[in-house]
Amino acid sequence: MKKMTPFKELISYEEALKRILISAKPINRTELVPIGKALNRVLAEDVIANMSVPPFDRAAMDGYAVKAEETFDASSSKSKALELVEVLHAGALSNTILSKGECIQVATGSPIPKGADAVVMVEYTEKNGDIVNVFKPVYPGANISPKGEDIEEGKVVLKVGEQLLPARIGALAALGKKEVKVYEKPQIAVVPTGTEIQEVGYPLEKGQIYDVNSYTLSSIISENAATPIKCKTVPDTTHELRNTVKKLLKYDIIIFSGGSSVGERDLLINVIQELGTVIFHGIQIKPGKPTLFALVDGKLVFGMPGYPTSCLLNAYLLLIPAIRQMARLQLKVEKNVNAKLAQRVVSSTGRTQFLPVKLKENLACPVFKQSGAITSMSEADGYIILPINTDVVEKNQEVTVFLFD
Amino acid sequence: MKKMTPFKELISYEEALKRILISAKPINRTELVPIGKALNRVLAEDVIANMSVPPFDRAAMDGYAVKAEETFDASSSKSKALELVEVLHAGALSNTILSKGECIQVATGSPIPKGADAVVMVEYTEKNGDIVNVFKPVYPGANISPKGEDIEEGKVVLKVGEQLLPARIGALAALGKKEVKVYEKPQIAVVPTGTEIQEVGYPLEKGQIYDVNSYTLSSIISENAATPIKCKTVPDTTHELRNTVKKLLKYDIIIFSGGSSVGERDLLINVIQELGTVIFHGIQIKPGKPTLFALVDGKLVFGMPGYPTSCLLNAYLLLIPAIRQMARLQLKVEKNVNAKLAQRVVSSTGRTQFLPVKLKENLACPVFKQSGAITSMSEADGYIILPINTDVVEKNQEVTVFLFD
Repeated sequence: MKKMTPFKELISYEEALKRILISAKPINRTELVPIGKALNRVLAEDVIANMSVPPFDRAAMDGYAVKAEETFDASSSKSKALELVEVLHAGALSNTILSKGECIQVATGSPIPKGADAVVMVEYTEKNGDIVNVFKPVYPGANISPKGEDIEEGKVVLKVGEQLLPARIGALAALGKKEVKVYEKPQIAVVPTGTEIQEVGYPLEKGQIYDVNSYTLSSIISENAATPIKCKTVPDTTHELRNTVKKLLKYDIIIFSGGSSVGERDLLINVIQELGTVIFHGIQIKPGKPTLFALVDGKLVFGMPGYPTSCLLNAYLLLIPAIRQMARLQLKVEKNVNAKLAQRVVSSTGRTQFLPVKLKENLACPVFKQSGAITSMSEADGYIILPINTDVVEKNQEVTVFLFD
Repeated sequence: MKKMTPFKELISYEEALKRILISAKPINRTELVPIGKALNRVLAEDVIANMSVPPFDRAAMDGYAVKAEETFDASSSKSKALELVEVLHAGALSNTILSKGECIQVATGSPIPKGADAVVMVEYTEKNGDIVNVFKPVYPGANISPKGEDIEEGKVVLKVGEQLLPARIGALAALGKKEVKVYEKPQIAVVPTGTEIQEVGYPLEKGQIYDVNSYTLSSIISENAATPIKCKTVPDTTHELRNTVKKLLKYDIIIFSGGSSVGERDLLINVIQELGTVIFHGIQIKPGKPTLFALVDGKLVFGMPGYPTSCLLNAYLLLIPAIRQMARLQLKVEKNVNAKLAQRVVSSTGRTQFLPVKLKENLACPVFKQSGAITSMSEADGYIILPINTDVVEKNQEVTVFLFD
């Protein structure tokens, strides 16, 4: 029997995050995607207007296109009579050139007919047969959206690095763009390790448990603008782990779950040391102490604890920031609320503790059972942080709850 | 020429939202989806544990399975020697029944062998060949996660109506569930109206503009857990509009954009009045006054303004709450920040104004050009609200910015 290897050097949570963010380089690969599928993607190029929007002078109001100077004398007591020579719909074009004494009815969005330089709102007119009486003067340009008012041809409309929120998708549509160049999403391989792991939907053999971590990890990867690649369970042997790492180096991140504790079968660290560089192994946090982080051929490799709560909480704390930085998204704005602690909590010594809690009105109720329990997380609304030097937090003390949702 | 119909009765924003939420009934249709695709969906049934998790007593630590009573005399100065009779990995089963004077090496997650009732952590032992010296007593049950500790068979694990956040997907996986019953997503038909609308990717004819609203509406529909169905542009004729409404009544919501202003071709309201009930037409808000809301055969019909900023802002204000209520999701927690207004703003009288602003450090800079300009929205980070009775908001006044993201 070989010696079990204990952790050598535990680092702080802050140091772990710092080392991860130094390694998580933004992705430079780009792809063209249809604008209908580009929501929330990150622009890989400046978008320069290839046309003006609107592409022509158009009516900004329902009313009548006129020569402005003909209305200068109009007033509520003394109207100006104009002959209605045509009726235009929003998409309709007119070949008529407006002459003196004439007007053309326009709808919001109608191209302005030649010869007209203003629109009188319908509210300030009265129509009798073919005669329109105008009761208010308009200045030249009134109620007209000139060509390029929204977007001027040749101008930069959207900048590289901007996230395509709904209105920005709209700006691309306004320019008639069918596709847009965006940065590729980080591709993240998720690998469960250990022969005791069974896939959902199959019966459990004696001693087996179902694969939880692939599902929780894939979920938060999808939620953070990256693509999870769910891989088959890999047995804990040096040979299989080595082959798996090599095969998955085509992805941006490889995450193993299980196989990074101090048990004798924890061979991942040996394989990594052979193929690349271990950046850290062991963090002063609870849960999630055994987390491993390494670089192999410039790719990020995480060895996550096998325990579901440790694995998922570590992913929130360490993986999401890495993914978002690689995806060129802003680090997530933490949503948090203040609450009173529902019961006294005794902290383990020497580690920063992340304690899952459920919110009941203004109370933060600890729901942590143990690191192996998925219900520690599925019943939680968020977590509170007990700093490294905390022994006890008393009941009713005010705490900050960081929300998962 | 027919008479243009002005708005009859404008209602307040609050009243409009209230009427919409009364009509937006939560969807009762359900479907089975694979758990890997169920993220953020809403449970349509209580999930009852069909098994215990863990499914067997298992080691919570790396160490040695022992009979606890044999360690009661052990101390750091006087160890208890036990014979190592087997080595177990996490997934491995043992047929050995532990006898007096024996121990079995276990890894975190190993099933506890018969005859053992505790695990001594490896840190409190020393191994010499086949002899393990134990330096600390353990109580019965120590370092064992008993069967059902996480989830007890027969208990309700997740409740109907809960949203499937990542950890809850994990709880389903822990139970081996392949599929889960969730409520269907609202299906929302998005229909541009007007012959002046061109699809992106095609050249513009004279007088045409590109379809912007289908893209912005589909984007925010997708973001709010519903399914957009992008429909072909419908010409503004009574016949076509009537056929379109009838054909799309299979969906939960029909949204027309364009065709609800006061122009003579605004025939949608006539068609709706013929087929169903207009709930309101016209809101005291800027932009977005002409919005129409109706019920036809119990289905919600929105007539959104054609102008991109009016349409999208109205969708944020009125459509998203309707969708989320139908999808049984919590109404969105508004993200907002306080800022100082960068310039004096004069409000239009008599309407609640929603003014798009860009944040520059602590300044809220108005970016509204006009309701027709998509860049009014694509350059904005959020909006401020100028209440109905506001005339002027002075420069440097503190305002609340409601964020789009």
